[in-house]
Formats: sequence, C-alpha cells, structure tokens
Amino acid sequence: MGEFDAALPKLKDMSTEEKTELCGRIRNKIIETVSRNGGHLASNLGVVELTVGLYSVIDPFHDKVIWDVGHQCYAHKILTGRDDSFDTLRRLGGISGFPMSSESSADCFEAGHSSTSISAALGFARARKLTGADYRICAVIGDGAFGSGMVFEALNDAGQLTDNITVIINDNGMSISPNVGALHKYFIRLRSGRRYIKAKSKVKRGLDKMGGFGRFIARNVERVKGFMRSAVVPEGELFIDLGWKYIGPIDGHDVNAVKDAVEKAELIGGPVIIHAITQKGRGYAPAEDNPSSYHGVQPAAVNQTAPESLNGGQSFSAGLGKILCELGAEKDNIVAVCAAMVGGTGLSPFAEKYPERYFDVGIAEEHAVTMSAAMAKTGLKPFICLYSTFSQRAYDQILHDIALPQNAAVLCLDRGGVSGRDGRTHQGIYDLAFMNTMPGFVIAAPSDISELEQFVRLAADSDKPFAIRYPAKMPQYEGQYKFVSENAVTGKGTFVVRSENGLPVRVVFISLGVMLFEIFKAYDILESNGIGSLIFSARFMKPIDRECIVALLKKYPDSIVVTAEDGIAAGGFGEQVIRIASEEGLNADRVRVFGFPDECVGHGSIPELYKEFGIDGGSIAKYCIDKLRIIEGTEGAEGTGLFSGDNL
Amino acid sequence: MGEFDAALPKLKDMSTEEKTELCGRIRNKIIETVSRNGGHLASNLGVVELTVGLYSVIDPFHDKVIWDVGHQCYAHKILTGRDDSFDTLRRLGGISGFPMSSESSADCFEAGHSSTSISAALGFARARKLTGADYRICAVIGDGAFGSGMVFEALNDAGQLTDNITVIINDNGMSISPNVGALHKYFIRLRSGRRYIKAKSKVKRGLDKMGGFGRFIARNVERVKGFMRSAVVPEGELFIDLGWKYIGPIDGHDVNAVKDAVEKAELIGGPVIIHAITQKGRGYAPAEDNPSSYHGVQPAAVNQTAPESLNGGQSFSAGLGKILCELGAEKDNIVAVCAAMVGGTGLSPFAEKYPERYFDVGIAEEHAVTMSAAMAKTGLKPFICLYSTFSQRAYDQILHDIALPQNAAVLCLDRGGVSGRDGRTHQGIYDLAFMNTMPGFVIAAPSDISELEQFVRLAADSDKPFAIRYPAKMPQYEGQYKFVSENAVTGKGTFVVRSENGLPVRVVFISLGVMLFEIFKAYDILESNGIGSLIFSARFMKPIDRECIVALLKKYPDSIVVTAEDGIAAGGFGEQVIRIASEEGLNADRVRVFGFPDECVGHGSIPELYKEFGIDGGSIAKYCIDKLRIIEGTEGAEGTGLFSGDNL
Repeated sequence: MGEFDAALPKLKDMSTEEKTELCGRIRNKIIETVSRNGGHLASNLGVVELTVGLYSVIDPFHDKVIWDVGHQCYAHKILTGRDDSFDTLRRLGGISGFPMSSESSADCFEAGHSSTSISAALGFARARKLTGADYRICAVIGDGAFGSGMVFEALNDAGQLTDNITVIINDNGMSISPNVGALHKYFIRLRSGRRYIKAKSKVKRGLDKMGGFGRFIARNVERVKGFMRSAVVPEGELFIDLGWKYIGPIDGHDVNAVKDAVEKAELIGGPVIIHAITQKGRGYAPAEDNPSSYHGVQPAAVNQTAPESLNGGQSFSAGLGKILCELGAEKDNIVAVCAAMVGGTGLSPFAEKYPERYFDVGIAEEHAVTMSAAMAKTGLKPFICLYSTFSQRAYDQILHDIALPQNAAVLCLDRGGVSGRDGRTHQGIYDLAFMNTMPGFVIAAPSDISELEQFVRLAADSDKPFAIRYPAKMPQYEGQYKFVSENAVTGKGTFVVRSENGLPVRVVFISLGVMLFEIFKAYDILESNGIGSLIFSARFMKPIDRECIVALLKKYPDSIVVTAEDGIAAGGFGEQVIRIASEEGLNADRVRVFGFPDECVGHGSIPELYKEFGIDGGSIAKYCIDKLRIIEGTEGAEGTGLFSGDNL
Repeated sequence: MGEFDAALPKLKDMSTEEKTELCGRIRNKIIETVSRNGGHLASNLGVVELTVGLYSVIDPFHDKVIWDVGHQCYAHKILTGRDDSFDTLRRLGGISGFPMSSESSADCFEAGHSSTSISAALGFARARKLTGADYRICAVIGDGAFGSGMVFEALNDAGQLTDNITVIINDNGMSISPNVGALHKYFIRLRSGRRYIKAKSKVKRGLDKMGGFGRFIARNVERVKGFMRSAVVPEGELFIDLGWKYIGPIDGHDVNAVKDAVEKAELIGGPVIIHAITQKGRGYAPAEDNPSSYHGVQPAAVNQTAPESLNGGQSFSAGLGKILCELGAEKDNIVAVCAAMVGGTGLSPFAEKYPERYFDVGIAEEHAVTMSAAMAKTGLKPFICLYSTFSQRAYDQILHDIALPQNAAVLCLDRGGVSGRDGRTHQGIYDLAFMNTMPGFVIAAPSDISELEQFVRLAADSDKPFAIRYPAKMPQYEGQYKFVSENAVTGKGTFVVRSENGLPVRVVFISLGVMLFEIFKAYDILESNGIGSLIFSARFMKPIDRECIVALLKKYPDSIVVTAEDGIAAGGFGEQVIRIASEEGLNADRVRVFGFPDECVGHGSIPELYKEFGIDGGSIAKYCIDKLRIIEGTEGAEGTGLFSGDNL
C-alpha cells in the first residue's frame, strides 16, 4: 500500500497542517509524473486541496464522487489506490488519465468529455431512492464545462426534485481557453461579491492562526452563520431560480472551507451548488502563469521554460491556422468558430488577426454548429474548428442544420484518428464513419500539410457542406514521396509515387489520409521482398473517387487490394471500396480493409496502438505477403521464392 | 395570389377586428387541411395570433423569423406564399410541414428538431454585423423546447453581446407531453405573477373597446410604462442573469400585445426575451382539451371525437409499453426514461403503473442518456425510449457514456426507418449506421411485435449496451409467415418461411427488421415468375449472425444475394454482409444492397418513399429478375422462359 492510500482513511482526523503537507506531496507527485508521462497538469494542480477537503467528509469508495471531464482526477487517483501505479499514467497497459471503473470502484463514473457529471449525479440519486442505498453524491465540475447545454438539462431536471445532490463548481475562470459567455460574467460577479472577499480573508487568517479546539468552534460558528446567510442573501439567483441552493463562493484551495461547505450542503439537503474558486496550475509557477499551455502537456514539457507544443511531424493544427489567416485576407466572408479550443485547433493567429470574424462559443459544440449554419445561409463561410471527438456532441446539428439543408459550412475536425494517450474517450476514430452518414457532405482527409491547404481552399470555394479531417500532426516520416496529381480536386484521389522499382504490381493500396505513411512502410517491406505494389491516396471519403478506383481494379484484375484508414472499419472508407468492387463485379473478395475493429481503443502512443490493432505498416505488409503466398500456393505455382519473410 | 398572400403587406394597417377575422380564417384553413392531410394541429393553432401580431411589425421576407421545431409554421406558410399550395401539405411533391428554404425565402432557417432557433438567431446577428445588413431577427420557441441544452448554450453566448435579437417564448405549458423540470415551474411562477394577470385583463378590455387614435395613444403609453417596468421589476431574473432583458408575460392570443412587445424589444435593444402565454390547440375544442393527442395527427383524425392513434398495422410503440409493463412487474430494476415523448413512445401505461420508476426529463436527450448510464452502473436496467431521429442529439452520450464504459442500458429507438410525412428532418434512417459505430453495442431490429417482445426480454437480461430499433407500427400485411427459430437469441437471425413452393433457390434474401414485408412481396413476385428464393431475417445488425450468413452463402454458391434495410446504405447492414462475403471469399460481387442512397429523403407516405428510392418489394423483385436474366444470358443458356416479366 502506497503512502497516499494510507492517508485516505486518516483524512477526517488530520490537522490542517498535516493536510497542507499532504497536498504538497500530492502536488509534487503530479508534477513529477506529468513531466515524464505527459497529461493534464493545470487542471489537476487546481483541485488538490478540493480533493483532500472533499475526502475529509466523503468516502469515495462508498459515496459517488463524479469528476467532470475526468481531467481533474489525478489527486483522486493517488488517494484511492493508484499511488503505486501512478508512474504508468497514460502508458500502454498503465492507468488511464481519466476515471475508469475497471481500475477502481472509487471511479464510479467514467468521463473524458465534459459536462456529463450532473446528469450522472441525478442518475445515481434516482437509483439511490429506488434501491434504498445511502451513499452521498457529489459532482465536481469546472466553470467552463458549466456552459455546455447538458449541464442545464441536468440542473433543470434535478432542480425540481428534493434529492440530496452536491455539485461543486470548480471555478478557475478557464475552460482550456479562457472562458466566454454570459455565465462566465455571472461567475465573475459572484466571485467579486462582498461575501467571497470577506470569507476568503477571514477564513484564511483565522485558520492560519488558530489551532485545535478554537478552530473547531470557529468553524462551526462559521457554518451556522453561513447556513443562515445562504437562506437570506440573494446571491446565486440563477441557480436558485432553477431550484438549487447556492453556497459560496468559497476558496477552493482552503481544505477546511471545502470540507465545511460539503458538510453544510448535506445539512441543507436537496440539490445544492457549492461555488469554489480555484486557480488552474496552482503551485507550479509556469502553469499558474500560462494555464492554457499547461492544460494537456507532452512528456518532458514540465520543468522547461515553455511546454513543447508539438512532438514529431508538422502540425496540421498550425497549418490550418496559417492557411485560414491567408484566406481571411483574400476573402472577407471567411469566419472561424471554435468551442473553447482556440489554441488546440490552431485558430490563435486568426483570432488575433481577425477578432471580429472569430467566435469562441465555449464548450458548446451544438450551438457552434447551428449558429454557423445560419451564418452560411447569409453567404458567410464559417470554418467550424472542433476536435473530432468533441464534434460527436453535434452529430444531430451537423446532420439537421448543415447536411440536410445543404448549408455550405466547413467542419475542420482536428485530432482525427487515434489521439493517443488520452485514451478511449478521446480517440477520433469514429468521425469518418459517422460523417459518412450525412447526405451530400464532402469529406476530405489530407495526408500532409500541402493537401490540407488545398482542401481548405476547395472548401472555401465549395457550395456544399464540407468536412476536413486530420490528426494533430503528421507522422514522422523521412522518405520521399510525390503526389501524381499535385492539385487537389474535390472527389478525386491521386496516385502516390514512393519509389520506382519496376516490379509488377501484385498489391494495390488504397489509402485515406495519414495512413499513407503506414502504407509507405508496407510498400518498402514488400519491395524488399521483391513484391511490387501501387499506392492510391483517395483523399476524399465522399464523394469517393469511384471512377479511378474502378479503373485501377480493372487494370490490375489479379492484384490483391488493401484499404487503410485510421478510423473504425465499420461504416468506414474501406467498406465503400468493397461495395464499389462488388457493384462493378471486380472481385470484391480480394479487397481487405484495415481499420479499427469493434472494440474500445485505449491509451498508448499512436504507433503502439496501430501495432496493437494490426493496422501498422508491418502488419499490413505481413498480411499481403501471407495472402500472396496462399494465392501462389493455390495456383499450384511454387512461386519465385520471393516470399522468404525476410525484411519483415 | 391567394387571399392570405394579399393580407401580409396590409397587416400594419389592419384594425384589430380585421386581424381577429383574419386569424379566424387562418385557423379554419389549418383545421381543414390537417383534417385531410394530417399534421401538427395543436401547436399551429396556438400561434395564429402570435404570427399575425409579429408580422404586423416584422417583414418575414426581409427580416429573419426563425420558427423553432418548425411545427408552428402553418400560419406563417399561409401568409407567405403557400396559401394556394397549402392543400398539398405533407404530400409527396407537396409543401413540407416544416420551414423549407427551397419553398420560400421567408423560410430563412429550416428546422424539424427543437431548440435550434436561438443559435440560428445568433448566427444571423453575427452575420448582420459583419455584412452590414439591417434585418431584424426574431426566434419563436416553445417553453418545452426551452429546456433543451443548446438553448442554454445560445442564451449564454448571446447574453454577453449587444446584438439586437428578439426571442419570443411561446409558453403553452406543454412540450408534446406536459412539461417537466425546474424551468417549467419557473415559467408557472412568472405566469402567475401579478403583472401578467393585470396586463392581460387591461390590454384585452382596452383594445377591445378602443379604436383608431385612442388605441394608438393607449398602446404607446403602455409601451413606455412597460419599458420602465421591465428595467425595474425583478421578474425574469433567470434570463437577466444570463444577460437578456425580459418582457412579459403577455397574452400571446392578443395580436396587439404581441405587436407592442416586439416593438418594445426593438426599442430596448440587445438580446430581449418576450414571454408570451398561449394555449395549445386554441380555437378547436377537442385539441384545447387534449393537446397531446392533437400534437401530430393522422389524416381524417380531426372532427372525430378522438384522433386515430394508429393507421395500418399493429403499433410497435404500444407493444413496447405492454411488454415493459409486464417486465416491470417481474423485475423491480426496470426503469423507463423518455424525453418529452411519453405517449409517442408507448410509455404511458408504464408511467401510470410505475410512476416511481418512470422519468420524463423533457426535451433533453443528452441528459436522458447519461443519467441512464449512471443508473445502469447501480444495477438498474434503464430503457431509454427515444424517437430514432431525436436520439441523434445524444450520439456522443450514447458512445461516451453507454458504449465505451459498456453500461448495460437499453435504447429503444422508435420511429426507426422512414417516418413518412414529417419529412427529411424526421426520417429515422440514420440510426442503424450511426449505432453501428458504437463498440460493443447489441443492435436489434424486430420485424414484428412478437420479436420486439423477445428482444426486450433479451435486453433486460443482457449485460451489454443494447439498442432495439423499430418503426411506429408494422406494415399492413395479410399473408402468412413463420419464423423458423421462434425463440430469439442475441446475435442470431432466423429463416422465414413464406410459402413452400419447391422451386430451386436462385435468390437469397437477407433482410433486417420490417423490410421483411417488402421481401415477402419480392418473394411472391419471383415465385409467380417461377423463381425460387429463400429469406433470412438477420434480426441483429450487431453482433451480426456471421456464422449463418456464411453457411448460407456456402450452401447457395450460385445464387444472387440481396440485402434489405429501411435505413441508409452507407455504413448500414448490407455493407456488413458484403464485407463478410468478401472476407470469406464467398463471391461478394453477387451481393446487392437495398437501402437509402446518399440523398435527403423528403416527405410522403412510407410506401411512396420506398418506391421513390427503389427499395420496395417490386423494385427488389425487378432487380432480381433482370440480374438473373443477365446471368442466364452470359452463361449462354436461353433459360427456361421463366423471365417473361409477367406478374411484375
């Protein structure tokens, strides 16, 4: 049992000094681990005292504590049995950076996307009533996540009830980007209210000076006074109108203030909001100064003067920002919309250069899409820049407001494909399949920055709904390659020349997006085994380049055909190719689809996950060699002795 | 030009008496047409005065009026050029029951799903600023739609701005089912406030009695007084906290009150909410008394004592309600969750029998799904009953909170497949494809009520996420059929015997869900042409019955294979069959997929739409006959003379 596991049951009896010291050690462990493994630094440093204060009252193994977005759960994990394994954070086979019920019963509800916690809390509350259980329920949610619609749906539903639910707003004034919206202004008003200023200085001064029994008295006096006040003082009316009681604001870095507020919420009963003020990146100066940069960091970024913004290949996000800035100068109808991800989506330069044409709506993907649809109706050309995984929130709006009415907005889906160490909730592997259900959408997947640039220009001139989907950055790749069609055309793919080896074509590769680089690896392995192949990069999932694919299959009737995509196979690109082959009677049986299977894809590095699921260049080459060997065998030929399996 | 088209430009100068008379005529036209064509009666009758009042100030051809959900747009359509074509409402090739930009420039934003209008309004406002346009912007949204999360996202975003936007809350106290939630209580508080009672009686009395100049004076006095009051009286704080100004409540059936409020909103400036009280079904006694039943009605339902609840075959929705009631008695962990659709989803009997285990969260599909995920974690078995088309709103929550953590909740997707006359925004044809992207989900599609019942029982006992998808009702079908496997097993399909004709099998049909009945038609046509076929009903989209499909393809290597589903072909069931055939080397080229193409599917009856898109039994049979004729031809045989095309 690690040192921190042992601390949990003792929290109730610890002195303030001991808790403060514990918080310091937790904070150091987080900084050390994130510096090695990467992870969410600023958000986790902001809730150390909040976690310790909360767990002085609430038992995370018996009660239900729901950490919204999940990226504020490191202190929780360290205190609830993941102390010893914490150094495996975000590594293949190691613990997840997000709550995971399979790791611990203390992780009562999984989350990676924001704003689900109050709905979950209400689910637990209704189950508690029906099953006669007695657990307490507490959701901890950031002020940024609070702006998302489903929070309002849950507040609205719970506010009519009498079930005891505590919601702690972890108000650090930030989403990942600085917060926006009327609610944000409202939080600032509450924060700057007389009561918070007073409470903060009083509690701080008081508790710093007092010890033992005196402190106990003081705390209880404060509790009773606070209780009376919250029934009288008209603060937090917004929540009160929705049927919630409001406690706060309190200092979220004051373990005793947190503890007192949670106890008070239980005394008051019904649905109660505790408004806790915290500082993102607390206790680590560079992150305090620049919390956006330290939201999600790469390994080794900590303890440098600034985090590495990128590892490996060139950044698609930065590429998008650059081309949008250029386009913005050329066309004044270009506008950019994001949902609390200005930095991550590469929009910062555009936002600086064209502030009047840039709109950050906060964590509100649904609103972002529908608002952009209306803009498109007026002749503006909105580029809606979302992370692939978060665009899932707007599936209906994309279909209902962009696709069906054929509004010519552009979706830029960043972090498409495997996003890596954030794990299963963040994988952008569903986008190709779900976007393909949208009638009349153009869906493009660039394999490098030059293609991204061309696709963005095509989208800007298109009168159709247009989606461009790409990962954060290009894979690292040293070799040469050349697109035969240098100028992209909507709905047309291109042949790609990797080398000229003159070998007869036995394998036709049909690739989408950055899987091209895995195909290059497969190509090289086949070449070194004396097997010739040909590479077609389809560029577009829809409209798919049916003409060229048909011509290719006709030209090489005896080849095997391999499709590759960094998304799920079901409903994906490869199945479209099989269907074309079948419809045209071109022997669909020889087509093999490489994509992710019907399973969760967990956390690990991108190459590790490709390999685990058999869609890396090596696995693809091995399939081809084995398959050709079988064909040679069944054809009765001994073959040319090429398939020795060397160079695999 | 129809009589109503001519009325629009005259509205500004019409007397109250003339407007009242006009409202009466509009109301009659709506009742008459809906009695013939079906449609949304109660909601449209509730906004006749509101529309006339609004268009006395605002020009729907120049300004942007956004009708939320769209099902309150009939008076709007009648006044803006659809007078003459109104009798084609909801008919194939006729005008849509929802706003449609292709019909008129007065339909500035399409909608069929709720709660998008404020986001659209903000999109227009931001475009207005950028393009220097001068249109006014007004969104009209029901109080039920107001509970959906994206409304809050839009209020939050717009509330921080100074753009002039008017939002009229059409508060009739109803969604389709009676409203729920804290917001609903809040609306009741506002409604029962001193001010509304006073204003209603005063304005009514005053305007009824006064004429001409006197009325003008009175109105302007009222305007100034109202302006002062709205700045002072602390009503509508909830909206004020979010940065909006609040006018109301007003009587939404008082054309002059509506006109005055809209003028006042323009004077005040910035984002303004007008709270108008209306009565659903106004002016038609049966609908006033029972607005839920008259929300969406079938043709000929009006002027009967009660609307026909169903046309044609047996109701799947009623079937679901019945079996859930039985299950509820057997197992106390069964709970039911719906999103403002208790009647439509068949849950009314369950809600009556087990009120403590029934939860209507209002129009809040996102919250419904995540809340249910938490319930499933505690051992409850939630049945989340949604319309297929509205479940799109919760795509992310289904994936993130049900599929990835493998929470064993059950999704009952009603109105799956073509929903008919509501048209493109309501077609449940995307569900199979988008649900198939969810890892580890069981996806079942019953073809009749007995299968539905069995699938519900399988779902209740399953430890996996489970979706059951079905249309409102079974197709009308007279003939006999028999499932070879009477007891359903998860992941297993069944052969279906339609007749025993002893003909050799030349066609293998692989069908999903209610498409079975189209396949029966095809089967009969083939039989009468002397062609034998075999029918396999897959029952499950996932896990697909690979074993049986492979055995079938192996047993009939020379047959053609036809798959059928009432969803989009892309990413659908048929593509899974092609991929299996390809992977197993069983000649995927002979498989032909029947499903909807990559196009919008508009409004019409279900049989009309099947025919239009070539997935009806006749079209399927014709394909088979043509294909077999070609095969006979290429095989050099003259055939048996069977393919005369008779009986087609």
